[in-house]
Amino acid sequence: MPKVTVVMGSTSDMPVVEKAINTLKEFGVEVDAMVCSAHRTPDIAADFAKNARENGTDVIIAAAGKAAHLPGVLAAFTTLPIIGLPIKSSLMDGLDSLLSIVQMPSGVPVATVAVNGAENAAVLAVQIMSLKYDELAIKLTDYKKTMKKKVIESNNSIQ
Amino acid sequence: MPKVTVVMGSTSDMPVVEKAINTLKEFGVEVDAMVCSAHRTPDIAADFAKNARENGTDVIIAAAGKAAHLPGVLAAFTTLPIIGLPIKSSLMDGLDSLLSIVQMPSGVPVATVAVNGAENAAVLAVQIMSLKYDELAIKLTDYKKTMKKKVIESNNSIQ
Amino acid sequence: MPKVTVVMGSTSDMPVVEKAINTLKEFGVEVDAMVCSAHRTPDIAADFAKNARENGTDVIIAAAGKAAHLPGVLAAFTTLPIIGLPIKSSLMDGLDSLLSIVQMPSGVPVATVAVNGAENAAVLAVQIMSLKYDELAIKLTDYKKTMKKKVIESNNSIQ
Amino acid sequence: MPKVTVVMGSTSDMPVVEKAINTLKEFGVEVDAMVCSAHRTPDIAADFAKNARENGTDVIIAAAGKAAHLPGVLAAFTTLPIIGLPIKSSLMDGLDSLLSIVQMPSGVPVATVAVNGAENAAVLAVQIMSLKYDELAIKLTDYKKTMKKKVIESNNSIQ
Amino acid sequence: MPKVTVVMGSTSDMPVVEKAINTLKEFGVEVDAMVCSAHRTPDIAADFAKNARENGTDVIIAAAGKAAHLPGVLAAFTTLPIIGLPIKSSLMDGLDSLLSIVQMPSGVPVATVAVNGAENAAVLAVQIMSLKYDELAIKLTDYKKTMKKKVIESNNSIQ
Amino acid sequence: MPKVTVVMGSTSDMPVVEKAINTLKEFGVEVDAMVCSAHRTPDIAADFAKNARENGTDVIIAAAGKAAHLPGVLAAFTTLPIIGLPIKSSLMDGLDSLLSIVQMPSGVPVATVAVNGAENAAVLAVQIMSLKYDELAIKLTDYKKTMKKKVIESNNSIQ
Amino acid sequence: MPKVTVVMGSTSDMPVVEKAINTLKEFGVEVDAMVCSAHRTPDIAADFAKNARENGTDVIIAAAGKAAHLPGVLAAFTTLPIIGLPIKSSLMDGLDSLLSIVQMPSGVPVATVAVNGAENAAVLAVQIMSLKYDELAIKLTDYKKTMKKKVIESNNSIQ
Amino acid sequence: MPKVTVVMGSTSDMPVVEKAINTLKEFGVEVDAMVCSAHRTPDIAADFAKNARENGTDVIIAAAGKAAHLPGVLAAFTTLPIIGLPIKSSLMDGLDSLLSIVQMPSGVPVATVAVNGAENAAVLAVQIMSLKYDELAIKLTDYKKTMKKKVIESNNSIQ
Repeated sequence: MPKVTVVMGSTSDMPVVEKAINTLKEFGVEVDAMVCSAHRTPDIAADFAKNARENGTDVIIAAAGKAAHLPGVLAAFTTLPIIGLPIKSSLMDGLDSLLSIVQMPSGVPVATVAVNGAENAAVLAVQIMSLKYDELAIKLTDYKKTMKKKVIESNNSIQ
Repeated sequence: MPKVTVVMGSTSDMPVVEKAINTLKEFGVEVDAMVCSAHRTPDIAADFAKNARENGTDVIIAAAGKAAHLPGVLAAFTTLPIIGLPIKSSLMDGLDSLLSIVQMPSGVPVATVAVNGAENAAVLAVQIMSLKYDELAIKLTDYKKTMKKKVIESNNSIQ
Repeated sequence: MPKVTVVMGSTSDMPVVEKAINTLKEFGVEVDAMVCSAHRTPDIAADFAKNARENGTDVIIAAAGKAAHLPGVLAAFTTLPIIGLPIKSSLMDGLDSLLSIVQMPSGVPVATVAVNGAENAAVLAVQIMSLKYDELAIKLTDYKKTMKKKVIESNNSIQ
Repeated sequence: MPKVTVVMGSTSDMPVVEKAINTLKEFGVEVDAMVCSAHRTPDIAADFAKNARENGTDVIIAAAGKAAHLPGVLAAFTTLPIIGLPIKSSLMDGLDSLLSIVQMPSGVPVATVAVNGAENAAVLAVQIMSLKYDELAIKLTDYKKTMKKKVIESNNSIQ
Repeated sequence: MPKVTVVMGSTSDMPVVEKAINTLKEFGVEVDAMVCSAHRTPDIAADFAKNARENGTDVIIAAAGKAAHLPGVLAAFTTLPIIGLPIKSSLMDGLDSLLSIVQMPSGVPVATVAVNGAENAAVLAVQIMSLKYDELAIKLTDYKKTMKKKVIESNNSIQ
Repeated sequence: MPKVTVVMGSTSDMPVVEKAINTLKEFGVEVDAMVCSAHRTPDIAADFAKNARENGTDVIIAAAGKAAHLPGVLAAFTTLPIIGLPIKSSLMDGLDSLLSIVQMPSGVPVATVAVNGAENAAVLAVQIMSLKYDELAIKLTDYKKTMKKKVIESNNSIQ
Repeated sequence: MPKVTVVMGSTSDMPVVEKAINTLKEFGVEVDAMVCSAHRTPDIAADFAKNARENGTDVIIAAAGKAAHLPGVLAAFTTLPIIGLPIKSSLMDGLDSLLSIVQMPSGVPVATVAVNGAENAAVLAVQIMSLKYDELAIKLTDYKKTMKKKVIESNNSIQ
Repeated sequence: MPKVTVVMGSTSDMPVVEKAINTLKEFGVEVDAMVCSAHRTPDIAADFAKNARENGTDVIIAAAGKAAHLPGVLAAFTTLPIIGLPIKSSLMDGLDSLLSIVQMPSGVPVATVAVNGAENAAVLAVQIMSLKYDELAIKLTDYKKTMKKKVIESNNSIQ
């Protein structure tokens, strides 16, 4: 079964992060959520990342704000794809988080999505896992159709 | 066999993009490269993206500068994971490209890497494909070891 | 009769966009409004743009936020002038939208107005159409006089 | 015959601006070029703008750098569409020029194109004039086809 | 008697601008306030500036937001010192206004103060006029002493 | 005789600053130039500023880069008008210097000109001194005429 | 006994600054708080800094907003380490304060912490003093353990 | 004997970092230099930081560019003061590095200096160590005198 571990630096990130969790569950993906800090519990972060592949995690979503090191720190310890979710917290609406996450050095990438883009973190995880789990490719096609339908209904509502 | 299609808006992006192509080949990944523009050949872009999954592409890397719409436009037509590679071309060292690629609306994510981060686009693609192709996970572990060795050698060289 | 099609990515843009619609109607311009997404309904967007000139549209106003691809995507499929209206939604008060709309590649321009500058999108559309419809040039002269009168009245009110 | 007046603040803008002039001439558009400053020759700027419509100008392209007031100052005196071309000169690769041009107050729009986007200023002018001059619509369709052909050739060259 | 004319683009700027007016009055300076727009009443703006020196104005304070052209447009028509007061209105907390005011071309300076820095616009005007009116130099020394006293009292209050 | 003291933090600022000195001399203004640092010679800076008015200085121009404290530090010790000239040195083409100079707290203004805008610092100083020295007002009118003539000649050269 | 002097430009900074004071007291550090302005009471600021080392201060924390000169001005007069705390007040969420504090010229550093990062200013002060006071090193180890415990509890709470 | 360990992510940082090393040596400080990566050798980084205090390091200087996680990652494992030195490498002249280093979460500070401010990183380290080593306080006073002398000589040279 496809499985994503969603890691956040603090429970204060939960209001943003839970949209990712809910979206993943709608796709039938198993979700592990954990609070874990790159700077306050670095050993726990390292242990989690080192063992994530063996423990059945397919993709890691890491949410972080300000000097958002968590996604990069996890990426140092695993070869799994890491999705970085910048949280809008302090400076310039999250530009600090975005740059801290996306500007990773060569060899250690983080797949970055929009500031507070929790739903997209989830959809990207599902797209990635669709390489391995065929049923997710089908669900993504349905998801795209539903999005299309909603836009068409919106358009009808304003005519 | 794992396969990545690398799309760029113009041949002027090649000096950056070829680092992605070379890295992918070092991992034994099949690479298709194409020039294709979101704004000048939109139908070709759409056709490519619609058929990419059936044509055996596992991951798409799309490089673009300025108002870098190409990754997002491809994402509209496929459920494959799209990696967006912002090219430094004009304003503020590529901040325009970065924001145009990463700030995608809900439901249509682009996995964004650093400005001019071509090698990372490739490594991220390999990480994603490692869910499906077990040998890539092993190669990624070796790649991490090689990186580590190089840092240790660098450190030795300055002692 | 002069006709503008106002396209927005989501009904959530309506509070900003309706100022454009109202201003256009005050100038006696026919207005078509539609909800249409570059990423969720790309084929509908392409079809609309391809046929806009034959369907009697003189100018297209496209409003979009975040990675605001809609104006550029429409511009790919038509030779009509496209006015891009950046919507303040997420990062740095709409700087992401502004850069995504204005930094278009050579050959495919978008006429960009201020962030949330809906009234200006409408006035620019009228100015453009005044090349073809002489009565609009006269109305624009009146509009300028009315603006002038309001400033003079404001000045009188503080003396 | 379609006519564009291209105004620049200084002859130092010519290397960028001449791409606009050349593109306009390729479309068979009559081009008047003038050097004129919002701050050093404000009366000349005002006189030009006040009389531009009667003098047969269809569209004005105004190029300016730094605190780029020229397009907005011309817009104050005419109801013709003004295209603002931000010149990269000083701060943050032209962000100062871009913001000074695009953030116009309600009622006095400037149609802004990319920083140093001279070719796009020309193409936008042609798109605008295509409402009045049918032959320009045809030439724009050809122009789009040529762009498409070049991308396809680029793509062939890298296969 | 020292005299400052305070010009603003709209009555909506009054809540910020009135701090400048009040401060000037506390220094015993005559204040003329006017609403006047660089883009909506450009001729009135030009006429005012051309005659300001003969009409007894010593310094002009011009407040403006967004693409804040007013201070620069007035500077084009007078050799009096112009103080530009950027108003926080739209993008990035007034960065657009600040850059539009401060980045003036060679030969036509605007003395720029902080975003929304109305009190400083007034104090700067008084400093400038103190070259001509000796009593203002004395009042400025008193003003500095009062500021110092307030800081010392603040410090005492927290001990 | 009108007198300006031009202060710079380091001789490395001289290539920019000397344009201000030359312009002032063309206006027949006496110029004192000094190297003085807010952080390395703070007492000398304070002494200079405290005595500047009695020593016959009419206006102070202070040039500084990076965390450009010099203009503000001088402003703390004098009631003379201080013109701050941000030097492009490090971050984002001088944005750091600009913000450090212009964003002064209430009561202690610095009259800020464009980044590297040395000529404008000089012209602004002359405008300020024209309140006291009538001949400078005449010279400024001539200066404006010369600027106008040059633009007209530039325009003629491209016809 | 370890002692920190916390300096702020205005009592309006107190809501942010008091977190630093409270944190320092929890570590058993003696705290002197003072209001002192680089621009309004520059002599008091200089006197304080010149005598700080002899008066038993180990570290200075200086909080300031906008053109935040206070930390740098104090650094000019002492060889003690100065911690600069940028206060979010005006432009771009405190980017002006951050750049004014951190971009100090060679030879006169300010140890800068995050915008509004008052707790970190305090912890950094304790880390610095731990070189001299061994008991602080022990307390810092406990502080790190407490932080770790809280993250683990947060994690437990969401399982 | 006072000892600083200077850590850099790559030998490519050496041209900037060596100014820090040289300055430290001029103060008679023992310097250990090492290459160590937060993402490529995370375990080595952690081991170094965990043992740094016992191994006699007083202060750590960590230089890093782009998503500059190294200073923060070291700070997670030690209670020693960490000085973060942002390296100008990619985006907006090092703004990415600056924000990634300075915007640390509560409890885990990094003492940040200017972008490429290697000399200041060294001087700050000496200031910190002067709490423990009295001779460094004396040397810092001499250093300040030398800086002052150089400014005075510069001033003399331009008179």
